Amino acid sequence: MTEAVGSKQTGTESGTRLAWIAGVGASAGLGAALARRFASEGFSVAVTGRSRERLDAVVAEIRATGGHALALSGDVTSESDLNAIARQLAEHGTLEVAIFNAAGATRAPTLELSAEQFEAAWRVTTLGGFLFARAALQPLLAAGRGSLLFTGATASLRGRPPFAAFASAKAGLRSLAQSLAREFGPRNIHVAHVVVDGGIDGERLRSSSPQRVAERGPDGLLNPDHIADAYWHLHQQGRSAWSQEIDLRPFNESF
Amino acid sequence: MTEAVGSKQTGTESGTRLAWIAGVGASAGLGAALARRFASEGFSVAVTGRSRERLDAVVAEIRATGGHALALSGDVTSESDLNAIARQLAEHGTLEVAIFNAAGATRAPTLELSAEQFEAAWRVTTLGGFLFARAALQPLLAAGRGSLLFTGATASLRGRPPFAAFASAKAGLRSLAQSLAREFGPRNIHVAHVVVDGGIDGERLRSSSPQRVAERGPDGLLNPDHIADAYWHLHQQGRSAWSQEIDLRPFNESF
Amino acid sequence: MTEAVGSKQTGTESGTRLAWIAGVGASAGLGAALARRFASEGFSVAVTGRSRERLDAVVAEIRATGGHALALSGDVTSESDLNAIARQLAEHGTLEVAIFNAAGATRAPTLELSAEQFEAAWRVTTLGGFLFARAALQPLLAAGRGSLLFTGATASLRGRPPFAAFASAKAGLRSLAQSLAREFGPRNIHVAHVVVDGGIDGERLRSSSPQRVAERGPDGLLNPDHIADAYWHLHQQGRSAWSQEIDLRPFNESF
Amino acid sequence: MTEAVGSKQTGTESGTRLAWIAGVGASAGLGAALARRFASEGFSVAVTGRSRERLDAVVAEIRATGGHALALSGDVTSESDLNAIARQLAEHGTLEVAIFNAAGATRAPTLELSAEQFEAAWRVTTLGGFLFARAALQPLLAAGRGSLLFTGATASLRGRPPFAAFASAKAGLRSLAQSLAREFGPRNIHVAHVVVDGGIDGERLRSSSPQRVAERGPDGLLNPDHIADAYWHLHQQGRSAWSQEIDLRPFNESF
Repeated sequence: MTEAVGSKQTGTESGTRLAWIAGVGASAGLGAALARRFASEGFSVAVTGRSRERLDAVVAEIRATGGHALALSGDVTSESDLNAIARQLAEHGTLEVAIFNAAGATRAPTLELSAEQFEAAWRVTTLGGFLFARAALQPLLAAGRGSLLFTGATASLRGRPPFAAFASAKAGLRSLAQSLAREFGPRNIHVAHVVVDGGIDGERLRSSSPQRVAERGPDGLLNPDHIADAYWHLHQQGRSAWSQEIDLRPFNESF
Repeated sequence: MTEAVGSKQTGTESGTRLAWIAGVGASAGLGAALARRFASEGFSVAVTGRSRERLDAVVAEIRATGGHALALSGDVTSESDLNAIARQLAEHGTLEVAIFNAAGATRAPTLELSAEQFEAAWRVTTLGGFLFARAALQPLLAAGRGSLLFTGATASLRGRPPFAAFASAKAGLRSLAQSLAREFGPRNIHVAHVVVDGGIDGERLRSSSPQRVAERGPDGLLNPDHIADAYWHLHQQGRSAWSQEIDLRPFNESF
Repeated sequence: MTEAVGSKQTGTESGTRLAWIAGVGASAGLGAALARRFASEGFSVAVTGRSRERLDAVVAEIRATGGHALALSGDVTSESDLNAIARQLAEHGTLEVAIFNAAGATRAPTLELSAEQFEAAWRVTTLGGFLFARAALQPLLAAGRGSLLFTGATASLRGRPPFAAFASAKAGLRSLAQSLAREFGPRNIHVAHVVVDGGIDGERLRSSSPQRVAERGPDGLLNPDHIADAYWHLHQQGRSAWSQEIDLRPFNESF
Repeated sequence: MTEAVGSKQTGTESGTRLAWIAGVGASAGLGAALARRFASEGFSVAVTGRSRERLDAVVAEIRATGGHALALSGDVTSESDLNAIARQLAEHGTLEVAIFNAAGATRAPTLELSAEQFEAAWRVTTLGGFLFARAALQPLLAAGRGSLLFTGATASLRGRPPFAAFASAKAGLRSLAQSLAREFGPRNIHVAHVVVDGGIDGERLRSSSPQRVAERGPDGLLNPDHIADAYWHLHQQGRSAWSQEIDLRPFNESF
């Protein structure tokens, strides 16, 4: 958990505004798109993920366009890592947006899923979301405002094979987001859950399923920048009309 | 169904862009806020509602700020009225956004609801939505793009007394919006349903329940302009990541 | 609305127990199966439907096995017909179970649905349910107990083409059943909604889609007698543990 | 994991039919009621739970009425315990019904929940359900038929404080039940989830909240025997009309 702050001064009257995004991986993925989007809106963006190399690449990309970013690697399933990151953030500014984008996906017939796989999916997706929320809520509550946003999936609404582990973990995360929204909305923290319904046009699918990418046609997979627009909108919503949940899917997705 | 076009020229390369909003009433209500919002984004806005007087007031207000608007009164439960309006719209530009905001609310213990009341709620809310969608879809499909947005309510998700008639009608409208989304999304028409959860800070509540308005506190009722932001966002979404449904509620609403 | 009471005396200490089933058609359909089931449990069963001939056949079949039944034809969208039936029922015993099984299905691309078709689906399915509920609740409340059960469909949960009219109407009915459950449960009336998910192995599919019937294999379509078991169970539930909604589908149905 | 088989011979043509119920505690709780119910229907009932003493009491009670039962203590979060139990069951007969009734409840404001508490709720409720399902599915699939039933809660549908941990875990369990239903229904295993909505009139509430029990009035809390009726009905359903989910609540519960 080292850091690397951008050179350009970001700030408002109340100082540097921070967005913390956990679950940042490839530059072509959703986490990186979220980081770019909030950076382009003037936030200093802290990115967390498992791969230091990938985090550094995302930070470099943002800085190259004049934005502010810092990489804070750590394990979202580790309370101490998350708390350490939160302490570092406090030195850099005021947390205003926290986004949990990590997930652990496993694909297998249920009887072939090991207990370890089932637990690992939950640990990254659900426990990670809980620990992240706790680490982020403290500074958000201290600031008296902010957004706590969760990346969800259609699987959170509907369990089906071969995604029993992933769906169960995402359902647990969605439930958590609801509890947090009901608990912290009245304290001026906007908690929302984004149901991503469909494949993301990111590095993962492009390398694992190039044929599927081709078959879906233009805009047939979710463009990470389009998804990021929705997160930005959520953060911008006036508090008299907050969304707790939105779905996002390609125009030609069957659902 | 007379009309009154604004004087300033609106246009893009493809001519005047139209937004049609049905269910426009008081200037302090949601319909008028939607009209103002789309007008402020450069649309020529056609407003439909039962009261010609109120429509004219909304149109005048928009024009006073340099926007373009026209009033097209008519009955959303009348196929011929809606088709006549659609024909008039065709003379003014290209329909790009169509919003159905009409609803008929009745509050009574179920055994005290007459068949006429039950039917009237459905006729304005659900049949109106169906007829409006049919009238709007023809020009939207002809243009090859556009948004068809429905104002929904929490009651659409959950029937309870004394709102049996209203809830049933809103549930029927929500279902319709889903069918339309699945049918016309692949044809490049974005169909979405907005679940308004809570009281709107508009003329109706201010006159009928001033005490409730006061008790809710600042931002404790949905500000129509905040709601309109969400509709605008829906229309702006990239088609690789369209929302089919979003909820909106005050930060301190229990749900 | 003539009647034809069975000859054998049915009764409990409090006299003849009546089950009223609306939406009874072919002997091989769900309505008839519900009638047979409640007759076999000792109820005197009143069957309502559009075809007098079919009602008479169902009544004859029940009587042939020693059960009690009467045919009361009438239009479920007619308040006066339903009230007339309710008055006749009062002469025969105490209403204890009322089941609304009528529905109007239309299948068409949404733009090809006429306003009349959209309305007709609602009128039979939703308005019919409302009028039936009102007619049945009066005697049920007077008796201080009983069940009011609605036949629903998966379409009530999910609108999709080419079922926009049917789905919207069924969604409206489901919402109504929820409102009624919340309003009349505390008054000791058990209101429940049965989501039938899949094709019913009845006369309709056998004649219209014999190939589909064959392809589904044994138990691949819902057996009306199996469905009727669920209604009977709902009526038998102890009131400390009432179901408001249950789904039913074949073991091999994908969902 | 010792055992204690009843003396009376249970059997069908295919030998002893077994029901395995995990999460059996006090005699006045749901697990014990389920055991009594299936025993009364001729099953030899294996009961699993944390307290050997309580299991023995339930077994003794069943035997005293002529039924067959055996106690198999073990930890539902331990794969080896569950597999050991499954092996023992194989010596006693053919598993036909498996019910997962264990849950870990924690009540606290979310920021006061420790990571350990959040995990413990999931471990007992969700991971336990997964491990139990795996252990039970093997003999059920070998037999070619049977039921796998899960005790759920309203919290599974709706996260809210102070139940964030419990709700998240129950949501994960509900999702799992859906995945299993979709995967194993076509293989003739009936997987269903029972949403218990309200307080159970069992030992826990009677000792912790006697006032609440009194205030709810007769049938105002769920009678475990009434709940058990629903499980029995689920097991009896014809496979052309299986329920995947049912809710159960007292007649006077607001929902």
